[in-house]
Amino acid sequence: MKTIYFVTSNKGKLLEAKEKLSAIDIEVVQRNIGYLEPQVDTLEEVALFGVEDVQRRFDKPFFLEDAGLFIDSLKGFPGVYSAYVFRTIGCNGILKLLDNIDERKAVFRSVIAYKAPKVDPMFFIGECRGRIFTNELGDNGFGFDPIFIPDGDTKTFAQMDVNGKNRFSHRSKSLEKLMDYFKDFNDLS
Amino acid sequence: MKTIYFVTSNKGKLLEAKEKLSAIDIEVVQRNIGYLEPQVDTLEEVALFGVEDVQRRFDKPFFLEDAGLFIDSLKGFPGVYSAYVFRTIGCNGILKLLDNIDERKAVFRSVIAYKAPKVDPMFFIGECRGRIFTNELGDNGFGFDPIFIPDGDTKTFAQMDVNGKNRFSHRSKSLEKLMDYFKDFNDLS
Repeated sequence: MKTIYFVTSNKGKLLEAKEKLSAIDIEVVQRNIGYLEPQVDTLEEVALFGVEDVQRRFDKPFFLEDAGLFIDSLKGFPGVYSAYVFRTIGCNGILKLLDNIDERKAVFRSVIAYKAPKVDPMFFIGECRGRIFTNELGDNGFGFDPIFIPDGDTKTFAQMDVNGKNRFSHRSKSLEKLMDYFKDFNDLS
Repeated sequence: MKTIYFVTSNKGKLLEAKEKLSAIDIEVVQRNIGYLEPQVDTLEEVALFGVEDVQRRFDKPFFLEDAGLFIDSLKGFPGVYSAYVFRTIGCNGILKLLDNIDERKAVFRSVIAYKAPKVDPMFFIGECRGRIFTNELGDNGFGFDPIFIPDGDTKTFAQMDVNGKNRFSHRSKSLEKLMDYFKDFNDLS
């Protein structure tokens, strides 16, 4: 079994990645060494900045992931600042902002940046479209999972177990692209 | 008349600084060269990071300023992300978040970081306490000015002209501390 490192402080993300990559015999090991995230408008820019920061301090194959919830009628808010917005106004704040608003379309986006010592950074993007429900449902997952229902289902992410969420989720899709890359190139060097 | 440079893209902030510093015969000149702002929890960290970025590219005396609106009942939201939050959910979003909430205390904070070639970075902090009104009033100022009433007045910042706002404002206070520093040391070297 090969090992790659996931630079994250988020146990929920770690669980989702371990679950996925175990299928191709790769062990995901957490490295909670942090990195600076800039105030920029796209997840891609945050991830690139993170890779450049981490690679100066860590010389094994690693990936990091930045994700956000982009709500159409709120001009993409909370977007790249989803973690901060969750810590402050939370799911309840988002529901208040959408009070009496019929247009509730949203997309969860995930950007994985992967870097191995002899390889340029690679980016893998996953999206899950859906809508913001009118109240919080479910206890699983983390972040805005209790208010997000993916297209093609009637449950929120927080009402699904990790396998259920992985059938839909943005991070599941970006992880699958990372897995495809490993299958093709297998360069955990 | 001496000159110092204000690294900002914000014409409203520039106007407030020009108005203040003209009183001590200092001309404030805009330098719109940008700097990277990290996703961190305090204005002080953002400002320090900005100074370190700018000083690598600019060798004249300069200052930059980061400000934010911190709302007590929203755990400090929108805080260091005030500019982004204004661009997305705006004043109206803040009013929705505070709908039916009686506790409306808030503080505008301003942190100025000043750097001259032979001097270590200096920080000057200004605060203006007040409350979030129930709707938008006034056309002056910028950002969240139409919904913020400073303690000791009944008008929003946006109902005041630049002189009126400067009697109260957070940025006025940090600018005054910067001016005190110039009076004492006068090291625009």
